[in-house]
Amino acid sequence: MRIARVIGTTVSTIKDENLTGRKLLILRPTDETGKVNGKPYVAVDTLDAGVGDLVLTAHGSGGRQTNQTKNSPVDAVIMAVIDWLEVAGEEVYRQS
Amino acid sequence: MRIARVIGTTVSTIKDENLTGRKLLILRPTDETGKVNGKPYVAVDTLDAGVGDLVLTAHGSGGRQTNQTKNSPVDAVIMAVIDWLEVAGEEVYRQS
Amino acid sequence: MRIARVIGTTVSTIKDENLTGRKLLILRPTDETGKVNGKPYVAVDTLDAGVGDLVLTAHGSGGRQTNQTKNSPVDAVIMAVIDWLEVAGEEVYRQS
Amino acid sequence: MRIARVIGTTVSTIKDENLTGRKLLILRPTDETGKVNGKPYVAVDTLDAGVGDLVLTAHGSGGRQTNQTKNSPVDAVIMAVIDWLEVAGEEVYRQS
Amino acid sequence: MRIARVIGTTVSTIKDENLTGRKLLILRPTDETGKVNGKPYVAVDTLDAGVGDLVLTAHGSGGRQTNQTKNSPVDAVIMAVIDWLEVAGEEVYRQS
Repeated sequence: MRIARVIGTTVSTIKDENLTGRKLLILRPTDETGKVNGKPYVAVDTLDAGVGDLVLTAHGSGGRQTNQTKNSPVDAVIMAVIDWLEVAGEEVYRQS
Repeated sequence: MRIARVIGTTVSTIKDENLTGRKLLILRPTDETGKVNGKPYVAVDTLDAGVGDLVLTAHGSGGRQTNQTKNSPVDAVIMAVIDWLEVAGEEVYRQS
Repeated sequence: MRIARVIGTTVSTIKDENLTGRKLLILRPTDETGKVNGKPYVAVDTLDAGVGDLVLTAHGSGGRQTNQTKNSPVDAVIMAVIDWLEVAGEEVYRQS
Repeated sequence: MRIARVIGTTVSTIKDENLTGRKLLILRPTDETGKVNGKPYVAVDTLDAGVGDLVLTAHGSGGRQTNQTKNSPVDAVIMAVIDWLEVAGEEVYRQS
Repeated sequence: MRIARVIGTTVSTIKDENLTGRKLLILRPTDETGKVNGKPYVAVDTLDAGVGDLVLTAHGSGGRQTNQTKNSPVDAVIMAVIDWLEVAGEEVYRQS
């Protein structure tokens, strides 16, 4: 899974029928402290995450192992909102 | 999913039999504002997208979760045409 | 899918039993005009492609969605030989 | 599989229901001697690995081939803790 | 598939039960002439390959399409030992 920050949203009228009602958020990967450092991608949100949240995303077929994403043409899902991150015994991120 | 812009088309006479009638478009990934920044790839179009459109593509087995692509030797599909993108509360792209 | 050029062949005596009789070609990815620009990889050829051909390859489980590759330990297949490529309304490649 | 070092832990209250009770660790890839050299990612731990351990992780659908991860929205699992690594006949890493 | 050279071995006592008896080798990707040029990774060996051999590896679910790897948490397998490589009509590698 990747650690990533939610930075925005996408809106589409023309889309695959299985995506009706799905929330597709824009994310950017972060390092292990929550600092953004990679290129943007889009994942389905099933946890009501919001812009600014630090989350984990599962990719590939892993992105379809939820009731909301199974059998849909998607390849990434937000599967956890991060409360805190600890590295080498130190808290390096806490949700504010 | 990746945000990408449709830049062109491919034409093939010799191809897998399951690809007969499929439209294979050339895309380039973009950043979160729709600006092209990555290497080209090819995806099946099931939404009648056109050159210049900003779209979302699903990759891997996710690319085969549509009626037109299931059981075909493909690994990417256009599953949404983007109307607009919003980042940090600002509209950063709108389909013209 | 990737746009790639066939640059060579591999020969193996010791291999998985499901690969007997399979042609494994060496390819390099190209840009959207057919110019080689990436690292080499190997794909199964089911279309009788030859060295010099510009082709499309499907990756991951997509590489096993053909009669010749299903249930085999492979992750890439040539699924189309490119006749021509068009970018922004201009023909940028044509098979010679 | 990747060789990686466990560097930390993640804690999430809001997560997919199939992740309840799962330990999600932060890792960084290493070279063939155990020296960290890549970007962090997160994997499910089913082997009671700890911070500092050098491990192997399986990715994609391979990450769900364990009793603890099957049918869950995850894409990486720790499937071995490394005792030692040998390169070109020399021991280059041993668990201390 | 990737062209890669076997550079070493891994030894693990604590591992997933489906990996008992499996040989996990360290490899590095090479260019199309067998010259090492990429980062190390680990694959299951089902062909009795040895350090120094040039091989092909299949990744993702392709790595589990063998009797020894099916249903195991692995994502890469050595599926061919390379005898020779030919690029543009020239032999560029031969097993010594």
